[in-house]
Amino acid sequence: MEGEKRETQNQAAEEEDQIVNPWEVAAKDGGKIDYDKLIDKFGCQRLDQTLIDRVHRLTGRLPHVFLRRGVFFAHRDFNEILDAYEKGKKFYLYTGRGPSSEALHLGHLVPFMFTKYLQDVFRVPLVIQLTDDEKCMWKNLTVEESQRLARENAKDIIACGFDITRTFIFSDFDYVGGAFYKNMVKVAKCVTLNKVQGIFGFSGEDHIGKISFPPVQAVPSFPSSFPHLFSGKDDLRCLIPCAIDQDPYFRMTRDAAPRIGYHKPSLIESTFFPALQGETGKMSASDPNSAIYVTDSVKVIKSKINKYAFSGGQDSVEKHRQLGANLEVDISVKYLNFFLEDDAELEHIKTEYAAGRMLTGEVKGRLGSVLSEIVERHRAARASVTDEVVDAFMAARPLPNMFD
Amino acid sequence: MEGEKRETQNQAAEEEDQIVNPWEVAAKDGGKIDYDKLIDKFGCQRLDQTLIDRVHRLTGRLPHVFLRRGVFFAHRDFNEILDAYEKGKKFYLYTGRGPSSEALHLGHLVPFMFTKYLQDVFRVPLVIQLTDDEKCMWKNLTVEESQRLARENAKDIIACGFDITRTFIFSDFDYVGGAFYKNMVKVAKCVTLNKVQGIFGFSGEDHIGKISFPPVQAVPSFPSSFPHLFSGKDDLRCLIPCAIDQDPYFRMTRDAAPRIGYHKPSLIESTFFPALQGETGKMSASDPNSAIYVTDSVKVIKSKINKYAFSGGQDSVEKHRQLGANLEVDISVKYLNFFLEDDAELEHIKTEYAAGRMLTGEVKGRLGSVLSEIVERHRAARASVTDEVVDAFMAARPLPNMFD
Repeated sequence: MEGEKRETQNQAAEEEDQIVNPWEVAAKDGGKIDYDKLIDKFGCQRLDQTLIDRVHRLTGRLPHVFLRRGVFFAHRDFNEILDAYEKGKKFYLYTGRGPSSEALHLGHLVPFMFTKYLQDVFRVPLVIQLTDDEKCMWKNLTVEESQRLARENAKDIIACGFDITRTFIFSDFDYVGGAFYKNMVKVAKCVTLNKVQGIFGFSGEDHIGKISFPPVQAVPSFPSSFPHLFSGKDDLRCLIPCAIDQDPYFRMTRDAAPRIGYHKPSLIESTFFPALQGETGKMSASDPNSAIYVTDSVKVIKSKINKYAFSGGQDSVEKHRQLGANLEVDISVKYLNFFLEDDAELEHIKTEYAAGRMLTGEVKGRLGSVLSEIVERHRAARASVTDEVVDAFMAARPLPNMFD
Repeated sequence: MEGEKRETQNQAAEEEDQIVNPWEVAAKDGGKIDYDKLIDKFGCQRLDQTLIDRVHRLTGRLPHVFLRRGVFFAHRDFNEILDAYEKGKKFYLYTGRGPSSEALHLGHLVPFMFTKYLQDVFRVPLVIQLTDDEKCMWKNLTVEESQRLARENAKDIIACGFDITRTFIFSDFDYVGGAFYKNMVKVAKCVTLNKVQGIFGFSGEDHIGKISFPPVQAVPSFPSSFPHLFSGKDDLRCLIPCAIDQDPYFRMTRDAAPRIGYHKPSLIESTFFPALQGETGKMSASDPNSAIYVTDSVKVIKSKINKYAFSGGQDSVEKHRQLGANLEVDISVKYLNFFLEDDAELEHIKTEYAAGRMLTGEVKGRLGSVLSEIVERHRAARASVTDEVVDAFMAARPLPNMFD
């Protein structure tokens, strides 16, 4: 019952300040999301340097930028995954996406980029859930449109470079049933209506599809939901990389797990990728100017950055040279923190910009080239993802070499 | 929204007197269920003689005892099924069972006996849903035990004589998914939490499995839930024979149907088969002495009838000869009304018994032989239902000759 008590506290606290749940992320009074507070409220653990060093040691590879720079900043029992791994026990990864828009933006790519890194360095299988049922219900899309978006999004996900010999992508509309449905029923039996209303804030006016959905997102945490992959491996642990707004689903899942004889899934959780206009929430698919899309041209990317990326620089060059930039609010620096691989260059930019020796325009210029390169690379990779490739990733098949 | 307004009225009314919902049937103050009131409250229609005559004319066969004697007494749009049938349009039948006990009692057989009659005279396909997921959730059975009971119950159902070329039996745990799951989501989107709480009385302490279940029982009403049977036949109408306690599920279904572009299913609804102790509710699986089971030996059947069947006869033979029996409360007469095929003999028994010329013991003796014969015949039929036969009925397969 780890979540039970906390829930009530959360609700009261969240009314006072920030709101973070799977459908809404909003900082207090237009300020920044307070991630320390979020860790306390949700009751997860901070991902500290000791743990990052341990990942470094266990994988023999420099930890991912997102780990080194605090993008993935919180966890639940990630240490248990590493304990088991150290003893030679593998695990599997589970992440997902709700397919509500045609094209992904950079914020959408963050968990997938990180998951690809985890898959590469730990050499483990991965399941990716496309919650087309969820989006059909929340966004009032037709079943067909939700499924079409799921396949389109699958192409972008595959373009992140996942290993087809270790990766199973599935759409709920296609895959719910059998062992997966049995686990949904087992989870649903453990969760009262009061409980989901407390966690997710559902009201009497909400339709029952919403109330039925949390078990659908819960059960990929259990290996028995995938008999074609993990038959006879009921003891396999699961690690879920996701943004922290998904934590409520997995608090619920972790409460239910021991009651139905399963391991609790572990989580590794990220901050939100901020909107161009500033770090008050996460990028929004409903405002196209708040985000860089993987379909944006180089010209559009550079123009969006120049026009909309909130600057921590001063109003005039003179004042800037004198006072320097406020890095805490500067979106270009935030974005470079996510995507500029070179630690030394990033440090250099931050120092020079803070000291006023570098101007906003120069930083934006560098960001423009970094993001353009990522988006161009993504676009080339996506172009090679044919319908046959999507079918291959989404086939419910055994993955005989997934642990090799 | 045919159910919406009525629901609130129902609730208030039901608190005053009888309770009839899928999980509880109780008459007011230990009296009899008032079926006329139920028709008014639920807002269904009385199945009158005109409709029965029409069935007679359309099928060219004497209507089933359950029709002639008012066992199936209410309906929703049954006339529309007959209108379409008269114009040469076929329909399909849908009925079901929640597998919560090892052996069925006679009350359980009533809808199946009637459904077999409908299948025979109209020559139409039939889907039978075994709600093992429901019983797993409501009775707190394991998934495995619910599935085992579903298969055991399937044997009893098959023993009723269904035509394998027109019948598909499925367990929810096996069959939920794909087109069926898509319809579940479509229905769930149409039903608010307030609405299901109004219809079914769910509370905040109930688990969300219960709240998720009504769409599962709803969607077999739509041909598109069975692509292997009805692909390209989205216009096919559905007729549901069931006891009237299932009406709430289908009120909800009929509200949702036009909103998702489907026909409303039609219903033909029965009274409850009374307990041996008297007509205050329906037979209960939890009290073995309240019911005759299909596994009871002839000796046990006769003994249960003699010991427990509530008698409308008088305390002494003298008084009985003088006053006669009260047929309104006599369970043996009620049971004969269900199961004694011969109209003339039934009338004779009722007349003689009411006049005091026939004694309770004689009526019970006749009932014992009637029920023993039915149970013996059922037992013999069930013995020939092998696991292979169950597999054959439960295979998701096309039924190419289902309308012949």
